[in-house]
Amino acid sequence: MSSEIAKILGECVNKVILIKLKDKRLIRGSLQAFDQHMNLILHKTEDITDNETKNLDYIILRGDNIIAVYLPDK
Amino acid sequence: MSSEIAKILGECVNKVILIKLKDKRLIRGSLQAFDQHMNLILHKTEDITDNETKNLDYIILRGDNIIAVYLPDK
Amino acid sequence: MSSEIAKILGECVNKVILIKLKDKRLIRGSLQAFDQHMNLILHKTEDITDNETKNLDYIILRGDNIIAVYLPDK
Amino acid sequence: MSSEIAKILGECVNKVILIKLKDKRLIRGSLQAFDQHMNLILHKTEDITDNETKNLDYIILRGDNIIAVYLPDK
Amino acid sequence: MSSEIAKILGECVNKVILIKLKDKRLIRGSLQAFDQHMNLILHKTEDITDNETKNLDYIILRGDNIIAVYLPDK
Amino acid sequence: MSSEIAKILGECVNKVILIKLKDKRLIRGSLQAFDQHMNLILHKTEDITDNETKNLDYIILRGDNIIAVYLPDK
Amino acid sequence: MSSEIAKILGECVNKVILIKLKDKRLIRGSLQAFDQHMNLILHKTEDITDNETKNLDYIILRGDNIIAVYLPDK
Repeated sequence: MSSEIAKILGECVNKVILIKLKDKRLIRGSLQAFDQHMNLILHKTEDITDNETKNLDYIILRGDNIIAVYLPDK
Repeated sequence: MSSEIAKILGECVNKVILIKLKDKRLIRGSLQAFDQHMNLILHKTEDITDNETKNLDYIILRGDNIIAVYLPDK
Repeated sequence: MSSEIAKILGECVNKVILIKLKDKRLIRGSLQAFDQHMNLILHKTEDITDNETKNLDYIILRGDNIIAVYLPDK
Repeated sequence: MSSEIAKILGECVNKVILIKLKDKRLIRGSLQAFDQHMNLILHKTEDITDNETKNLDYIILRGDNIIAVYLPDK
Repeated sequence: MSSEIAKILGECVNKVILIKLKDKRLIRGSLQAFDQHMNLILHKTEDITDNETKNLDYIILRGDNIIAVYLPDK
Repeated sequence: MSSEIAKILGECVNKVILIKLKDKRLIRGSLQAFDQHMNLILHKTEDITDNETKNLDYIILRGDNIIAVYLPDK
Repeated sequence: MSSEIAKILGECVNKVILIKLKDKRLIRGSLQAFDQHMNLILHKTEDITDNETKNLDYIILRGDNIIAVYLPDK
């Protein structure tokens, strides 16, 4: 991850982001930390793939499972 | 990504590009930033795979999901 | 894995964590050690994917099979 | 990519090449630039997989999707 | 593999370990040697996936096929 | 690729080799050049998977698609 | 591949080994050379997957296709 992308992701710390995974699931959580592999630490995480929300709470998400991270509005 | 390819992609910043993903989806957005892994930051992003356009707004797209980036005309 | 993510995972040593694998299985165990590839050593490990719990005891889990690690509460 | 393979591919710049992708598609375009990962920039690109040709115009093709590049005659 | 994980695996040399592979097979053998990619040399190896045990004897197992290594009790 | 394997493959330059691909296809051509990733440049290439031979002529074959290269007799 | 694993594989040069591939095939041949990626050069190679043995003779086998190498007895 370039420093420019890291800077934009860094501005999202403590903000809620959505993550689309390669296995089609959609995860929502508050970004706590990340690294250059796009490994993410999320708090108050929820799996919102289906209508029924599942609480996952506090997780490390491996970057290699991610298709896209949806950022809060600029 | 070589400096030559980075230069061409750099000329697309703030322009609308299309991205074909390995999962067959077609994404359209305004390129904000990118790195040597072809990770892309896109603004005003839309999933235009199906007839019904879905707004994705502001996203980071991981480069390893990409088949091709369709650039604006030379 | 960045030092920040390693620090958070380091605080989980000797605590029980859950791990979601790419093959859909859900593993629970007490974290003993880990490395920068997210390879984990777990003790008192159980496969809790199905209703019937299977004891796996003391294992090394390769990091490249992991989707997410569910951490104990902050 | 070794300097020998880069040299042969370099001789194809501004020439029309065909690319067979891992997803079975066949792409034809004029090579503009490439790097050591076999990422290609193509102009006047066409998807000629099926009988109906689709214009893709100006694209970056990620090298990790490629099976083979068909070069013009020696 | 970190030196801490290597140390724990090193204590298993000449002991019987079980290995779960990505292709669902379960292998049992006496660990002779290993490296940082989790490539393993096993002696008196058996494939115990099904009820019928198959002797594989003396093998090199590539680390990238492994999901988990089940260690003897602490 | 070690220098020993590169030496053996180097002795095949200008000779006809067969290549078995991960997608089951069988390719035959005269080896022109190669690199340490097993990327191959082939001349007078033919796809001989099925009974009907298809001429591919002059190609670059990406090494990561290859299962095995069948060499001429020692 | 560590020097310890390379030493054990080195002792198999000019001996007959069996190789189990990720595509389920079973290959038998006399080991001529290898490198740290487990790329193997085999002589008098046979595909013995099915009852009908197919001669493959002299081949380079890419290491990333291999699950396990069955070594001659210690």
